[in-house]
Amino acid sequence: MDNSTESLLSTISYPSDLRKLSIKQLPQVCQELRQFLINELSRNPGHFASSLGVVELTVALHYVFDTPEDRIVWDVGHQAYGHKVLTGRREIFHTNRHLGGIKPFPSPQESEYDTTTCGHASVSISAALGMAVAAKKDGSERHVIAVIGDGAMSGGLAFEGLNNAGSTPNNMLIILNDNNMSIDHAVGGMKEYLLHLHTSSTYNRLRNKVAQKLTSWGWLSDKGKKRIIRLNNSIKSFIHNQQNVFEGMDIRYFGPHDGHDVISLVYTLQSIKDMTGPKLLHIHTQKGHGYQPAENNPTVFHAPGKFDPETGEQIKGNATDMPPRYQDVFGETLLELARKNDRIVGVTPAMPTGCSMNIMMREMPDRCFDVGIAEGHAVTFSAGMAKDGLIPVCNIYSSFAQRAYDNIIHDVALSRLHVVMCLDRAGIVGEDGPTHHGVFDLPSLRAIPNLTIASPMNEAELRRMMYTAIKKQDGPFVIRYPRGNGVMTDWRCPLEAIEIGTGRMVSESKGTDGKFSKTAILSFGPIGNTVQQAIKIILNKEINTSLPAHYDMRFLKPLDEKIMQSVAESYDHIITVEDGAQKGGFGSAVLEWLSDNGYAKKVTRLGIPDRFIEHGTPIQLYEICGLDAESIVKAICI
Amino acid sequence: MDNSTESLLSTISYPSDLRKLSIKQLPQVCQELRQFLINELSRNPGHFASSLGVVELTVALHYVFDTPEDRIVWDVGHQAYGHKVLTGRREIFHTNRHLGGIKPFPSPQESEYDTTTCGHASVSISAALGMAVAAKKDGSERHVIAVIGDGAMSGGLAFEGLNNAGSTPNNMLIILNDNNMSIDHAVGGMKEYLLHLHTSSTYNRLRNKVAQKLTSWGWLSDKGKKRIIRLNNSIKSFIHNQQNVFEGMDIRYFGPHDGHDVISLVYTLQSIKDMTGPKLLHIHTQKGHGYQPAENNPTVFHAPGKFDPETGEQIKGNATDMPPRYQDVFGETLLELARKNDRIVGVTPAMPTGCSMNIMMREMPDRCFDVGIAEGHAVTFSAGMAKDGLIPVCNIYSSFAQRAYDNIIHDVALSRLHVVMCLDRAGIVGEDGPTHHGVFDLPSLRAIPNLTIASPMNEAELRRMMYTAIKKQDGPFVIRYPRGNGVMTDWRCPLEAIEIGTGRMVSESKGTDGKFSKTAILSFGPIGNTVQQAIKIILNKEINTSLPAHYDMRFLKPLDEKIMQSVAESYDHIITVEDGAQKGGFGSAVLEWLSDNGYAKKVTRLGIPDRFIEHGTPIQLYEICGLDAESIVKAICI
Repeated sequence: MDNSTESLLSTISYPSDLRKLSIKQLPQVCQELRQFLINELSRNPGHFASSLGVVELTVALHYVFDTPEDRIVWDVGHQAYGHKVLTGRREIFHTNRHLGGIKPFPSPQESEYDTTTCGHASVSISAALGMAVAAKKDGSERHVIAVIGDGAMSGGLAFEGLNNAGSTPNNMLIILNDNNMSIDHAVGGMKEYLLHLHTSSTYNRLRNKVAQKLTSWGWLSDKGKKRIIRLNNSIKSFIHNQQNVFEGMDIRYFGPHDGHDVISLVYTLQSIKDMTGPKLLHIHTQKGHGYQPAENNPTVFHAPGKFDPETGEQIKGNATDMPPRYQDVFGETLLELARKNDRIVGVTPAMPTGCSMNIMMREMPDRCFDVGIAEGHAVTFSAGMAKDGLIPVCNIYSSFAQRAYDNIIHDVALSRLHVVMCLDRAGIVGEDGPTHHGVFDLPSLRAIPNLTIASPMNEAELRRMMYTAIKKQDGPFVIRYPRGNGVMTDWRCPLEAIEIGTGRMVSESKGTDGKFSKTAILSFGPIGNTVQQAIKIILNKEINTSLPAHYDMRFLKPLDEKIMQSVAESYDHIITVEDGAQKGGFGSAVLEWLSDNGYAKKVTRLGIPDRFIEHGTPIQLYEICGLDAESIVKAICI
Repeated sequence: MDNSTESLLSTISYPSDLRKLSIKQLPQVCQELRQFLINELSRNPGHFASSLGVVELTVALHYVFDTPEDRIVWDVGHQAYGHKVLTGRREIFHTNRHLGGIKPFPSPQESEYDTTTCGHASVSISAALGMAVAAKKDGSERHVIAVIGDGAMSGGLAFEGLNNAGSTPNNMLIILNDNNMSIDHAVGGMKEYLLHLHTSSTYNRLRNKVAQKLTSWGWLSDKGKKRIIRLNNSIKSFIHNQQNVFEGMDIRYFGPHDGHDVISLVYTLQSIKDMTGPKLLHIHTQKGHGYQPAENNPTVFHAPGKFDPETGEQIKGNATDMPPRYQDVFGETLLELARKNDRIVGVTPAMPTGCSMNIMMREMPDRCFDVGIAEGHAVTFSAGMAKDGLIPVCNIYSSFAQRAYDNIIHDVALSRLHVVMCLDRAGIVGEDGPTHHGVFDLPSLRAIPNLTIASPMNEAELRRMMYTAIKKQDGPFVIRYPRGNGVMTDWRCPLEAIEIGTGRMVSESKGTDGKFSKTAILSFGPIGNTVQQAIKIILNKEINTSLPAHYDMRFLKPLDEKIMQSVAESYDHIITVEDGAQKGGFGSAVLEWLSDNGYAKKVTRLGIPDRFIEHGTPIQLYEICGLDAESIVKAICI
């Protein structure tokens, strides 16, 4: 890009600057913004293809609407990078997703242009409706715009929002950004529906002819005008096999429009912005638009990591000897189990690639169900299958499983159904920040009767737990594990069952000074490896303290009573370590057991403190939470 | 009814008996079944009008389908009383909702005819889809039928289920039981939509004329047949202002039919039962049908209590001097607050009568939002309003708020929005059983940062907490309170603020033998009144033990550190009492505080044990859970 073309974007600090430009300059702004995003994200990884797909929409919205007075509510902040660049954050965009840098998703705490914290999908319509109702109550002329993708539209919350948008007085504009993708691909009836919802010349011809005929029959005399509008939609449906659900809900429908023609978008937005009542503009965009490698492979370029901006080639570290990701261990093991047991089926809410269920899906497409962004349905659907004898393995990211809390209680646990829930991305996830940390699962699930809750300290344990969970037929089984790599390069251990509710000793108590330690560490999940690091630090630095015993408890529920008993009898100080909320989690389970069994002990509970943890690398965040090896050493030495 | 007409129902123990009858006898079966329900429910209260509305459907389903091999999935078991009577439970139907008697909702643990535990709405399509997929996988010819009301259809989960039903191979039949009611009234676009989805003679005339014309234009030659089917729907839409969302989702649509014509229902079901692919039969029914008082007032007759079967007159106890229900205190206080502060708005998911928000609604209809059965939306919509300066008071039953867990975390707490969440029906609810007990709120919500969580011991405290919650603008505020009556006849105290995070002493420690007690009781919420009863029992019976001190902690979060400190320093034995899950709740918060602050104390935690608690009267269930006054006395005397 030469200097003259770069000049436009560099003059835009805020949308007010953008609005000083002529409409003819907008395509250039889009081109520069797109190139800026490509350059920045090739160096500093983040979500990519979604933001590229809405460059024109972003520019058009800030050009037409008086932001921040007008409210733009982005559904899932993946797509909001262009928005960030145009709203005062261009200069610091290189800090995106870094500790202390700008946040991974929009956040009202960061900018007045960000209206909601939007890390989870399908939220925008409900939140925007709230703002639109508030505006109406204040007699404000403020516009409220929700921008929602077709993938997010499959979430029940979006439907609940739509259902109420039609019946609550408001002037909200919903923009349906239809790229036929969620993270993998949009699924379900809604996708089919949107695919066919477009205009065509056949439609126009038919409409005119029928209108003529209706007039000649005398049917247009009466409520003629209103009817002819409805007729448009009816015939549109007729031609395209489909019906317009939005107008059925009393939401005025416009579209579909080309979402990459910024000038036409501006004109369209200008023409509908002041119409009263709820309205929906349907635009077609392409995920990764304008960058060939991303257009070709939008799933990979959803969040591609570093890449060469010229070629699109991904720049990967030298990972030959790296331990595998827990995700891949899950995926490979699931396939292995499914080959041996044809009752096993897989269920994922829109994350087949993210959770690696695609490994099973490739070989057994009929036994895997990607239900779209619909976590509640994923669990209740699994319950239905379990009721009639299948063994569903339902994989949901821990923070998204918060959406299925009632389904786990009401549809699975209450009936003791044999559903295996694998909670991926449990604990600190890193750069995706507070909306994505999976830290509330332990306290919330621990209270539910009939659940078995386990977490593996390593890959082999994950395999064994999955095997155990499949075998244990008398109720639901939850396995939580984190994002990212494990600790074993040789992880393909035989599949053997673990006795339910048993932990294991990882390392013995040993006195550096001849005496045994009076401290025992109980850990739950992969954070146990950090405990081992802490013990090594003590060994290597020859710190003058005895080495604590270390138990990997494996099961939060039921807790290993034998280990508890022996620890309570032999040690004075118990340290609990978990990668989850401190309030009510694993450490509390230990406290409860001790109290219920009459032991009064000094207990140090290490876990996620009672505040939302921002984004950063996992290493940085563990340090902030006091869950790094050095912090554990300190807890031991106290 | 004379003996000859009574004879049919009495011959039916199981659906196989029903299927021996001729189709002509079915209207009589319906009449008898309806009268049976009226008689039984007038004496032994339960949910009434819903079951009356589906008498014909229930009979037709069991007549046409081979239950229990074929699966009927009822959405919300309110409507399933007739189903219970026809499936082996007629003789014991008088034990319905009694401790140890038949369960308030269908339950697979009770009968093989019951396919799911269905106390919460909108579940049926997802669960049935799971069963239909399992049947298909097994090559079984089994039919799976979901029966869902129009109210439940507003829940996002139902939409997620529909969305997947269209795209997953299955032969499920969905029956949309459209009575234009949920518990109060169905709301939202879907309601409007369903209202207009019916046939008419105008439609038929128009269809024929247009078809003729299309043929004459030569447009029916090609894909003619398929198109003409679509045309039907299109013109249907045209006439009725509306579109058919179901066919848009690739679900074959039939209807609407009269749901009270049992013979026509049977023929319809027979004709569509073996069609492949997902299909939906839309029937119109009337809630309370066939019983005039219920037809006239279906909201009252949703669960009317005892009534005179002849006149429909409700038989009420002599309640003049009774303390008010917490619900009415909430409703009256909300109105009082809303009159003084015009920023306050009310939000309820389909429970304006149940939670008494109808008190405010009558005076300020524009400031109350009944969003339908859509708990997630209720919370996120509230968040949007709070973002732009309104003060939403969002009232959700505790067990239904499990559906909004992610919305509370992601949309409210993370952004510290000033949303007041009132959790009604918290704790043991009694006869509605395990799906309705609100026992998981404390552990699950306590882990969420930025939340203030309070519970009042009596009506005056509820009023003060509501006032305090409205005033505290820097974040969300949760108030939980139970179903039913409070303890004060004179409850209209002045509205004064409570200092956040402060408890209060209810009664002092006192020695019967001159020495002060070494026991302190910390309670949370109205269960504190049972603690007071326990203390009175000790006094009255002159049990030889000192009287413990009793503190009403009022706030689960933040915990009153001053009280904690003073209790930890002055007492040896601490008893915590809460009407919620023992694992991770209030008692655990106390344990955590003691441990974190270096106190090793004997702590007895009284709360709901780690199993699902069945139905019964609250008094019976508290006894079972060890939360009655006698159990507290025992805990004191140990």
